[in-house]
Amino acid sequence: MDMKRLGILTSGGDAPGMNAAIRAAVRTATRLGVQMVGYLDGYSGLVRGAFVELDDRAVGNIIQRGGTILGTSRCPEFLDPEVRAQAANQMKLDGIDGLIVIGGDGSFRGALALQDECGVAVAGLPGTIDNDVWGTEESIGFDTAVNTALLAIDQLRDTGESTGMMFFVEVMGRTSGAIALHTAVAGGAAGVVVPEAHAEIDHVIERIRETMAKGKRSHIIVVAEGDEAGGAFGVAPIIGKALDRPYRVVVLGHTQRG
Amino acid sequence: MDMKRLGILTSGGDAPGMNAAIRAAVRTATRLGVQMVGYLDGYSGLVRGAFVELDDRAVGNIIQRGGTILGTSRCPEFLDPEVRAQAANQMKLDGIDGLIVIGGDGSFRGALALQDECGVAVAGLPGTIDNDVWGTEESIGFDTAVNTALLAIDQLRDTGESTGMMFFVEVMGRTSGAIALHTAVAGGAAGVVVPEAHAEIDHVIERIRETMAKGKRSHIIVVAEGDEAGGAFGVAPIIGKALDRPYRVVVLGHTQRG
Amino acid sequence: MDMKRLGILTSGGDAPGMNAAIRAAVRTATRLGVQMVGYLDGYSGLVRGAFVELDDRAVGNIIQRGGTILGTSRCPEFLDPEVRAQAANQMKLDGIDGLIVIGGDGSFRGALALQDECGVAVAGLPGTIDNDVWGTEESIGFDTAVNTALLAIDQLRDTGESTGMMFFVEVMGRTSGAIALHTAVAGGAAGVVVPEAHAEIDHVIERIRETMAKGKRSHIIVVAEGDEAGGAFGVAPIIGKALDRPYRVVVLGHTQRG
Amino acid sequence: MDMKRLGILTSGGDAPGMNAAIRAAVRTATRLGVQMVGYLDGYSGLVRGAFVELDDRAVGNIIQRGGTILGTSRCPEFLDPEVRAQAANQMKLDGIDGLIVIGGDGSFRGALALQDECGVAVAGLPGTIDNDVWGTEESIGFDTAVNTALLAIDQLRDTGESTGMMFFVEVMGRTSGAIALHTAVAGGAAGVVVPEAHAEIDHVIERIRETMAKGKRSHIIVVAEGDEAGGAFGVAPIIGKALDRPYRVVVLGHTQRG
Repeated sequence: MDMKRLGILTSGGDAPGMNAAIRAAVRTATRLGVQMVGYLDGYSGLVRGAFVELDDRAVGNIIQRGGTILGTSRCPEFLDPEVRAQAANQMKLDGIDGLIVIGGDGSFRGALALQDECGVAVAGLPGTIDNDVWGTEESIGFDTAVNTALLAIDQLRDTGESTGMMFFVEVMGRTSGAIALHTAVAGGAAGVVVPEAHAEIDHVIERIRETMAKGKRSHIIVVAEGDEAGGAFGVAPIIGKALDRPYRVVVLGHTQRG
Repeated sequence: MDMKRLGILTSGGDAPGMNAAIRAAVRTATRLGVQMVGYLDGYSGLVRGAFVELDDRAVGNIIQRGGTILGTSRCPEFLDPEVRAQAANQMKLDGIDGLIVIGGDGSFRGALALQDECGVAVAGLPGTIDNDVWGTEESIGFDTAVNTALLAIDQLRDTGESTGMMFFVEVMGRTSGAIALHTAVAGGAAGVVVPEAHAEIDHVIERIRETMAKGKRSHIIVVAEGDEAGGAFGVAPIIGKALDRPYRVVVLGHTQRG
Repeated sequence: MDMKRLGILTSGGDAPGMNAAIRAAVRTATRLGVQMVGYLDGYSGLVRGAFVELDDRAVGNIIQRGGTILGTSRCPEFLDPEVRAQAANQMKLDGIDGLIVIGGDGSFRGALALQDECGVAVAGLPGTIDNDVWGTEESIGFDTAVNTALLAIDQLRDTGESTGMMFFVEVMGRTSGAIALHTAVAGGAAGVVVPEAHAEIDHVIERIRETMAKGKRSHIIVVAEGDEAGGAFGVAPIIGKALDRPYRVVVLGHTQRG
Repeated sequence: MDMKRLGILTSGGDAPGMNAAIRAAVRTATRLGVQMVGYLDGYSGLVRGAFVELDDRAVGNIIQRGGTILGTSRCPEFLDPEVRAQAANQMKLDGIDGLIVIGGDGSFRGALALQDECGVAVAGLPGTIDNDVWGTEESIGFDTAVNTALLAIDQLRDTGESTGMMFFVEVMGRTSGAIALHTAVAGGAAGVVVPEAHAEIDHVIERIRETMAKGKRSHIIVVAEGDEAGGAFGVAPIIGKALDRPYRVVVLGHTQRG
């Protein structure tokens, strides 16, 4: 099939690097003589047929910006096969031959359904800070999210040494502990608490007790927001009380998407 | 009075730049032929007579580190005049002629009492991220704390534009809105909530409503931790509900001291 | 005089913070019911009558960007009184009642001449990384330029300790040593070389020799680009040879304007 | 063979992450009941038998520091088989059963010779910002070096747009263009010049001419220090002259190792 005009959209949570991916797709397409349009706000733009033309200049000077110039959203109505059929139909009317989706797992399921049901050719670029796309070593945005969290840990380290406090750093990850785990290892944290594990809090307490006995004065514990104990504000009092130590909480939140 | 040997300590909350101040004091003293010792963990080291000798090499390579190499603590017992008299006595026994205190308001009150009651010559270097020392334009640590908060705002800005969310950023300041105010102005925040003011939440809501009407898609509100509404987690639901908008919270906490 | 419409321009070398200043000026004007236009590329836009309308949305999301959205240039022809008269005339034709100039010393001289000769009301905002505007404690951009240089010094410090090398860091400053001096003090450099001084290289050599004798292993020397010895690549071989030590050069250049 | 005591050293150019690698090795060894010693200043410490004991506390709080706490050097005498035999002998006398080498290609050749000739068990951790170790996807330090260069490019981008200048950014890489190439792609540079290629300067000129014709105002060219044209100061005048455009040079140098 000879494609002359493609759509691109960003979907789900935004991830740093999405703009760089949009730019790369557009510039490659241009070089190959393919036109590109960008759907606005994820699948909701696809459904509404809301798009902008994207040429080389339209993606100039965006490579370093966080977020996504196309906007993103979660679009529950796209779970409905009729809505997908309608979107595919609108694409044909607009002369758009295929779709590039930058997003995570859920966004890819929608894209696959669109392809299977409606024959729209789709390509997926894994773009999620959660790094939970099967078959992908590092999804777009993951590295930046981990590095943002590492910077915070570096900042806390000095003040922790000075005051002898424990710090709990909440990083993103509702169902994925990937950011938390990589941050904890790379930052030399005293412990890590993730959604995928269940008995780790006792383990963290025990381990900190051991290192305190050896004279370690400062402890940083990384907590994924989605942990069952309720993120850092849920985990901190449990560990702080068990060890009878003063503690403070940092919630990095969306700074990791910037 | 000819001083041959001085003590230095850091007290209260630690502030970035305290190490640079220690280094500068030690190197200046050395050049003038004055010895320096560093009391450990603030006034509690002074009370216990716990100190280390500080020469030029001891303060090498610390200028860029956050926190304080001497440690710091709050020392409630130093509020007791008898404890202060005892500390002054111990200083004399150790041959220490004067004291340099790096800290904030409370630390300076302690230093002044020591001087007035016991005749110990003291000098104070304003070192607090809160910038609330009278007569000082910018206390040590304030600039770094504001810049750390600004970096977070820059990171949030892009993701806010992409998703249309409101972000509440909690900065330090139990009784002082200085960091919040400067961060809000320098970061172009949509609103700021500080301990010193009381009716500002309604004002912020109104102002955001106006800018939403003009098409502004993303709003960042800076909240001092000590605001009476309970920090960012207290303020966010009030404003989010009033405007019926999704929001997320970031708590920067001690990263601002790094 | 009742002003209804003002022009604003950025002139000379660009400085980080110029966009924040443009934004602040525009938003304040809007609130007061005054229209604003932005002249493009400094005085050359004024001469050509090339400007864009600036309302609140036009300056949205620019506060954190380096450089200037209006562009800047040096405009030698504006030294000619006839060119200035013509520019003032064009302003009147375009219904622009006054001019805000963000720039340094040279830009201000042009603005003053415009006011004195042609009766155009002008206001100046000191915007230059060189911090050389008389009567201004810190010009817009200076703080960022110093902090960029300090980050480089922090990065060099660790590698210097590891390898025992000397590093020469060239910072901006053709005629002004302000960035160099502040960077050297704040970064704990072993020496500083500036355009305003002439015999300091020998002094730096002597001082490093002393600290080497005391065991200091790593030395960072900050050099202003405009030093008569020819910037860091001019100074480094002189000092390196005198001390018989390996050295490397870093040239920060325009990264300080970002 | 049952090992009770291992040596570790860092060799060649230092790379950010070497300290994290030392820490990880020591902590793992400790957990397994193996003692560790650190040789000072690379192979020269091994030859001299100069080492320090490394326990868990000795590697505390170093994970975030650039450079290497053990020091590093190039050690030409280790090319001599007799020197290697002597070093192996000294290791036996000191009761050290094996050696971990963190370094690049040259360091690994020395380690292999030590193993082949003298039967010393060696393990290598690829630690070099050049990413030129065969069989390794990303060597320790490469990611940080690229990210440091990317930050510089982000800073230049805004000022480039404002002034219409070309910027040449020299990154490390005497024989390897890996940092330059990755930086150029990730930073969206207009061109890249590396030691491995020879006719690329003409190609860069042609490509910039094309994008200038399309209205692109700002161009950033990444140059590896080892390019045959002589680094950025060699390449810049050639390209600047060919295109008749003003340009500036940035030399990042050792900041990439911090």
